[in-house]
Amino acid sequence: MIDTGDFRDRIRQSFGRQGAMDMLGAELTRAEQAMVEIEFAYDEKLTQQHGFLHAGVISAALETACTYAAYTTIAPDVSILTIEFKVNLLSPGRGERFLFRGEITKPGSTIIVADGRAYAIGDGPAKLIASMTSSMMVIRGREDVVG
Amino acid sequence: MIDTGDFRDRIRQSFGRQGAMDMLGAELTRAEQAMVEIEFAYDEKLTQQHGFLHAGVISAALETACTYAAYTTIAPDVSILTIEFKVNLLSPGRGERFLFRGEITKPGSTIIVADGRAYAIGDGPAKLIASMTSSMMVIRGREDVVG
Amino acid sequence: MIDTGDFRDRIRQSFGRQGAMDMLGAELTRAEQAMVEIEFAYDEKLTQQHGFLHAGVISAALETACTYAAYTTIAPDVSILTIEFKVNLLSPGRGERFLFRGEITKPGSTIIVADGRAYAIGDGPAKLIASMTSSMMVIRGREDVVG
Amino acid sequence: MIDTGDFRDRIRQSFGRQGAMDMLGAELTRAEQAMVEIEFAYDEKLTQQHGFLHAGVISAALETACTYAAYTTIAPDVSILTIEFKVNLLSPGRGERFLFRGEITKPGSTIIVADGRAYAIGDGPAKLIASMTSSMMVIRGREDVVG
Repeated sequence: MIDTGDFRDRIRQSFGRQGAMDMLGAELTRAEQAMVEIEFAYDEKLTQQHGFLHAGVISAALETACTYAAYTTIAPDVSILTIEFKVNLLSPGRGERFLFRGEITKPGSTIIVADGRAYAIGDGPAKLIASMTSSMMVIRGREDVVG
Repeated sequence: MIDTGDFRDRIRQSFGRQGAMDMLGAELTRAEQAMVEIEFAYDEKLTQQHGFLHAGVISAALETACTYAAYTTIAPDVSILTIEFKVNLLSPGRGERFLFRGEITKPGSTIIVADGRAYAIGDGPAKLIASMTSSMMVIRGREDVVG
Repeated sequence: MIDTGDFRDRIRQSFGRQGAMDMLGAELTRAEQAMVEIEFAYDEKLTQQHGFLHAGVISAALETACTYAAYTTIAPDVSILTIEFKVNLLSPGRGERFLFRGEITKPGSTIIVADGRAYAIGDGPAKLIASMTSSMMVIRGREDVVG
Repeated sequence: MIDTGDFRDRIRQSFGRQGAMDMLGAELTRAEQAMVEIEFAYDEKLTQQHGFLHAGVISAALETACTYAAYTTIAPDVSILTIEFKVNLLSPGRGERFLFRGEITKPGSTIIVADGRAYAIGDGPAKLIASMTSSMMVIRGREDVVG
């Protein structure tokens, strides 16, 4: 079994280095083995032309949740690069807050595949607004890709 | 043939309503029939944990370029919603400036498909850093989706 | 609520018209509201160059399962066309039999999104070999696309 | 520069081992550096329920063209496994013959990305019916994945 070390500390530090997550006002609210959640509040700066959450903002949060879900399954001295992802926009991104969950579908020593789900949260029940599938590569020994 | 009206004005106004494009410091630098370009400069706020351009930021710009490329092919009184897109990250997002081009692969009265390419621009030749394929739906008569 | 009629009969008849499913030796083994399963046995004619199940064969079965899962949610007088799908190949397609399940993630009157999973079945536990996300369009009034 | 050996012979032999390509009646009609074409004639056994070419059949041919396009860029002693692909269905698969072209968008020693295009060929101009983007992994030293 892989010794993933104290992945929570590691992930929080890495998340803290992401300028883009800071720009979105995003928080890492949950990090379990093979599952990570990110949340942020609605803000006008995050919108597309109709006032919905921008698809790229949804992608940024889902892709980050998927990446850190992968980090929870690898050793501390290796890293992750995303090869590709696909996003389906299922409902307009309207809501007070948004939650993004990434979960590992297929762990691996070379390729890791994760699925993500984005939810709008308001008064009523959480609404599924988007889904992602992401393929990632485990990176060893590259100095520009650490942590 | 569809009367697309003065699509440049229409697209610039719509682009100007996108909080997310403003947040990224993005400019709409070109709008031709079936092809749109967006550009912005590197900024630390746009990065992932290794200091490269965040995949979600790349997605936001590519998806916007693809969407407005679709706008150039439709009548002024209809609108576009993105159904889904896929992004391949081809090289790390390093560079001084970035250019994002969206082009229509398949126009249509119901479904429009576009392909996008992202380039890092610096001293040397432009470097292809990502590609996107995006499927969009033409929307008529929905009051919350106009322009 | 949509009256989906006797969707099982409808789906079996439509499935029976698919030359490609006959070619694969595929059977429709389950059709529930929003969920359909297809199965077939391993055969050398279904392989790629390493003797594994061909990715296109996996796609054919997953796409068909997703499409008929969509059929279970629509009225008998409309039809479905697939806009696009993405397949992740998670493990080599080795096994005695294969099972392909399509499930509706997002029903809709215009766009329907389904997720599919493919499993290899042999002596041990079923092994997940592939996943699909598929976007489909509901078609009304087109004479060449019925049933 | 990689010595790709006599890639044409290598690809033809590998293609000849694909049960699925034989089943489709497919021929490898062109193999150039970073570009491969596959063709076959329309046949009722290749159809979905409306009589169009089945999306899975389109996927099988496009994925194979993309894979062999990748083979033309690698050394003879390594192999290729497809990680994932996405297909957009742009027009119904109607025609007398079909041509599938795979081209390398991003070569690499670990990950290779290809784009594919499928065309229906009949009396008039060739019609674009589908596009694919495929991500592949270069495989070294795995005994079950050779050639």
